[in-house]
Amino acid sequence: MGSVLREYWMPLMLSSELPAPDSEPKRIRLLDEDLIAFRNTDGDVGLVANACPHRGASMFFGRNEENGLRCVYHGWKFDIEGTCTDMPNEPAESNFKHKIHLQTYACRERNGVVWAYLGTRTELPELPALEWNMVPENQRFISMRIQECNWAQAFEGGIDSSHSGFLHSPVSSHRAKTEKDYDKDPNLQAGRRGSSKGMIYKARDKHPVFEVVDTPYGELIGARRNAEEDSYYWRITQFLMPFYSMIPSYGEDPVMGGHAWVPLDDYTTLTWSVDWHPLRALTSDELAKYHDYPRGAGIHPGTAKGLLSATSKPYGAWWPKDNASNDYGLDYELQKNTLFCGVPNLGLQDSAMQESMGPIFDRSKEHLGSSDMGIIRARRRLLGAARALQDSGTPPAGVDAPDAYRVRAAGVVLPRTAVWAEAAEEYVTAHREKHYASA
Amino acid sequence: MGSVLREYWMPLMLSSELPAPDSEPKRIRLLDEDLIAFRNTDGDVGLVANACPHRGASMFFGRNEENGLRCVYHGWKFDIEGTCTDMPNEPAESNFKHKIHLQTYACRERNGVVWAYLGTRTELPELPALEWNMVPENQRFISMRIQECNWAQAFEGGIDSSHSGFLHSPVSSHRAKTEKDYDKDPNLQAGRRGSSKGMIYKARDKHPVFEVVDTPYGELIGARRNAEEDSYYWRITQFLMPFYSMIPSYGEDPVMGGHAWVPLDDYTTLTWSVDWHPLRALTSDELAKYHDYPRGAGIHPGTAKGLLSATSKPYGAWWPKDNASNDYGLDYELQKNTLFCGVPNLGLQDSAMQESMGPIFDRSKEHLGSSDMGIIRARRRLLGAARALQDSGTPPAGVDAPDAYRVRAAGVVLPRTAVWAEAAEEYVTAHREKHYASA
Amino acid sequence: MGSVLREYWMPLMLSSELPAPDSEPKRIRLLDEDLIAFRNTDGDVGLVANACPHRGASMFFGRNEENGLRCVYHGWKFDIEGTCTDMPNEPAESNFKHKIHLQTYACRERNGVVWAYLGTRTELPELPALEWNMVPENQRFISMRIQECNWAQAFEGGIDSSHSGFLHSPVSSHRAKTEKDYDKDPNLQAGRRGSSKGMIYKARDKHPVFEVVDTPYGELIGARRNAEEDSYYWRITQFLMPFYSMIPSYGEDPVMGGHAWVPLDDYTTLTWSVDWHPLRALTSDELAKYHDYPRGAGIHPGTAKGLLSATSKPYGAWWPKDNASNDYGLDYELQKNTLFCGVPNLGLQDSAMQESMGPIFDRSKEHLGSSDMGIIRARRRLLGAARALQDSGTPPAGVDAPDAYRVRAAGVVLPRTAVWAEAAEEYVTAHREKHYASA
Repeated sequence: MGSVLREYWMPLMLSSELPAPDSEPKRIRLLDEDLIAFRNTDGDVGLVANACPHRGASMFFGRNEENGLRCVYHGWKFDIEGTCTDMPNEPAESNFKHKIHLQTYACRERNGVVWAYLGTRTELPELPALEWNMVPENQRFISMRIQECNWAQAFEGGIDSSHSGFLHSPVSSHRAKTEKDYDKDPNLQAGRRGSSKGMIYKARDKHPVFEVVDTPYGELIGARRNAEEDSYYWRITQFLMPFYSMIPSYGEDPVMGGHAWVPLDDYTTLTWSVDWHPLRALTSDELAKYHDYPRGAGIHPGTAKGLLSATSKPYGAWWPKDNASNDYGLDYELQKNTLFCGVPNLGLQDSAMQESMGPIFDRSKEHLGSSDMGIIRARRRLLGAARALQDSGTPPAGVDAPDAYRVRAAGVVLPRTAVWAEAAEEYVTAHREKHYASA
Repeated sequence: MGSVLREYWMPLMLSSELPAPDSEPKRIRLLDEDLIAFRNTDGDVGLVANACPHRGASMFFGRNEENGLRCVYHGWKFDIEGTCTDMPNEPAESNFKHKIHLQTYACRERNGVVWAYLGTRTELPELPALEWNMVPENQRFISMRIQECNWAQAFEGGIDSSHSGFLHSPVSSHRAKTEKDYDKDPNLQAGRRGSSKGMIYKARDKHPVFEVVDTPYGELIGARRNAEEDSYYWRITQFLMPFYSMIPSYGEDPVMGGHAWVPLDDYTTLTWSVDWHPLRALTSDELAKYHDYPRGAGIHPGTAKGLLSATSKPYGAWWPKDNASNDYGLDYELQKNTLFCGVPNLGLQDSAMQESMGPIFDRSKEHLGSSDMGIIRARRRLLGAARALQDSGTPPAGVDAPDAYRVRAAGVVLPRTAVWAEAAEEYVTAHREKHYASA
Repeated sequence: MGSVLREYWMPLMLSSELPAPDSEPKRIRLLDEDLIAFRNTDGDVGLVANACPHRGASMFFGRNEENGLRCVYHGWKFDIEGTCTDMPNEPAESNFKHKIHLQTYACRERNGVVWAYLGTRTELPELPALEWNMVPENQRFISMRIQECNWAQAFEGGIDSSHSGFLHSPVSSHRAKTEKDYDKDPNLQAGRRGSSKGMIYKARDKHPVFEVVDTPYGELIGARRNAEEDSYYWRITQFLMPFYSMIPSYGEDPVMGGHAWVPLDDYTTLTWSVDWHPLRALTSDELAKYHDYPRGAGIHPGTAKGLLSATSKPYGAWWPKDNASNDYGLDYELQKNTLFCGVPNLGLQDSAMQESMGPIFDRSKEHLGSSDMGIIRARRRLLGAARALQDSGTPPAGVDAPDAYRVRAAGVVLPRTAVWAEAAEEYVTAHREKHYASA
């Protein structure tokens, strides 16, 4: 699977994590490789191997200056192409430096996100046109968290629509019985994403029926619930190759949400959580909520308040302070009265489930139901891509179709007779100028 | 050996650890399996696999309500039989739930102890009639501690009578020379188990001679010391299959003591320490001493004061706060002047020895002496049971003889001419109405 | 390689770590063996296996009294020869104790250092006549630190002369351009080892040319830099089998410096740092600087201030408190303005480089240059010794030539026409009454 992932550009980090030319290098781990990211004097990002090719000392301690990273052991200096531009401990006339190369990977920046390509192509593919990275930075908010489990366990949670009515639900949603109850329930009135009929439909019908449609970039996953007598409420989730999701929102002027799950290695994943509005800047209220911890807003871990400072680890800024060691802040009073799961933070509710499966879950022990259809299809897509790449060198879906990523999730009410994927097409397209309400 | 252990009911936890119907679930680890224990609405205890059969999320986060444990990921609910009673994320008409089963193990409660059976029999054996679990709760006190080593290293310490004259002894007992010295020594006058001639005999004769007799339930281990000119002082320890001990007491109205060593896995053991009086409630003085830390009374780790709160670990309530990381509180002043070992807590003196052998000690490196006879015989009994079970399916000793466990340890003075096992029979029987003084 | 190392006496610990007869035992780990060191009542040092031969309990808890170490489990007592002198839990007439032996290794003390021999010879070789252990204790200062990496990575740093112009350099030495700049620079004026022309030569010529000469005890490593028009500045480092270095000093009345790298196991090394003056006591100013932390003086980790108290670990007194978990105290302001590396402590600058290579670096990934010649030759010497020992039982170089170790490092200016190893011979000999200035 690593070979498949390498064919794609991967989101590496936020530009703001390398705040200025010659600022401090950062430890990265990606697809089992230890790397160092830094911004050079010209402002470009370099991504280099952690180990100096001389004797293996870590480039993390390197001096980031004068358009290069200089190992502090013997002063060997490398530019962002990996060329050894100075080898001061060897005689001046030596051309040993020409034989030395520090492994690097290509980086690109776009709208405040740094992307990395670890693949084999010399002519690089285009960046995927994911809407959250096509809009200006003030229209989107991104935070990350480390999950100490395999990336598959993590992304599967993200495209599994049926769990949110349980894991992320308020206790009251399981008690409300009549329409009147739903109307009276404050949790359902002022949902985190605005009040909407969709939230009521979702609370009332906990048995979504799933249908999945293949797309050029991944899978369109429709979760169908009863709405009115003659309509269905479709919550349409996007799975985009190789590890992205978009999750449907609620309300009149919905902020969109989604994730990426980037593997550091087989047991550690960096989960990106993104909120964005296609047309406008996020408001200060919206932004304030993302920083609130532990209840936060939606999918973010509350940024600094919820994070350790662990710079000696890869992606050291993004390790949650509530984790397996304290059961993610599990609170039984909260579980009894307020939140179905009892873990205060929504993102950590996912971490609790996914990490408690173990570092890599033995899939022979699972029993998937009809609500797991999205997961089954996404796995099939990934495994198929791996096989095709291995057997015939076929590039995985989406690598060469960057614009296919111009999609959104959607929550729509459709007539019961509609062919949902067609009827919803307008809503799941990421129009440059149009943005629809969600149900 | 795991197969042998599984044939027996095993003490799982105290009833008080599941204090009420629908109280918080507890993490368990037993014979290398991760399990969750909970008390349902009817008040019965369930012991289930940790991993939800859906996608492996931990049932520890489950909602314990309405006679079941409901996984918080997708709401799958299981009763204490492991039947899936609700699968709310699947369509109502689906009978997928009938194909799903959560592994469970049978539990029984008796007098404040929860027992678990992990064996193969469908018709369950009876619980062993260990006296400390046949008497009312106010007649006994139980505490537990985790030892980070193999259970064999731990139980061997428990049936090795010759070590208590050293590891658990006061320094003064090695200095006293004459009868008068012993009479004057406050440590020997007011021993933790009451003053008695037995303590003096034990301090004077540090070379017990061992004899071991097979019994239907295990081994009777006699440590013979000189008493008076025409008598021996026999301290008789019980080893009961598969991992129980009873240790002889002292004094007029002795409180009995014993242990169980329950394996979490090959490297971790839960050591049960039990004090009980066959006929009367324990006094408040006796109970207060058990809670005292670090000197405590006898074999208990002082309960809360000596324990970490480590709920993210299995048996999280029972991990000692003084452990290998601080050498169990080793104090060289104490070692020089007061306690032979220098570790303040008696139970941790054992932990220090047994854990410092390593997680599993390489037995090829040991050299057993005549005082290790009890250990040699107990191992032989266990290995023999394993072989017999494997070769011919013979149930291990004691499984089908619950009443054979109605025994006690004893400290008796017998004529030198007596056949000790016969002469002591009355004292080592756990009479329902009779209780003998110890020497 | 372990077999080669065992043939040599190894520095074990400072005498002061066993401050008095019957003082507390210390945990040792050496060549993958867990051992206990103690000083008996007669004042002699014993080095014994950690595990009591009875049942493997740790002798660390043993009672050090009456010329022996008495295991606290059953009271078995051992003298420093490993003879079981008392077995009090067995019958008095038993001669089981004569069959029991605790493994020991020979120890010798000289001038405040305890040495250990873990080899096969029954007739022990002589201690190496390393000058720092031939002079009285007041003429030398020793500190140690644990490095969590293979000893080879550690010693290679020590004999690699070209790194000190980078890793250990002040930022200013890379900015100074003219002789006048060097003269004005306070860092170069008052170097930690006194101001000298040598420091200026070193700052100016960062491209030393290396030459290596085999010696009976190891390797003589010369780093040649330009001095004046007709002279070279030779900094001559000693590598002494199997794991010692001596590094050249500076100034009129130089204090000599050197190291030893003693393997606890394949992933952990105890680095000895020694400063000594051949002829006089160290001054109180010199000594005060060694205790200063983090900037310390030279190679010492500031002793107590820079160390954790980790008595549950082997060599528990010597684990640095700044380590990988906090990037050795890396300070980017310091890196920008003052110290090339940014790690405040000189010894930890080495630890940062050597530990960041990983526990054992995969040597297939390195690219050695001409400045690594010393390392290449030292490795060749060690590997050759291993082969010769294995194939023909040849004792490794130096084992039988203790006086060959009477050498020093030197920093000398020689005519460009000189044959350096010959011309420098006088300077690199450890004369009992003569001590030369360094350049």
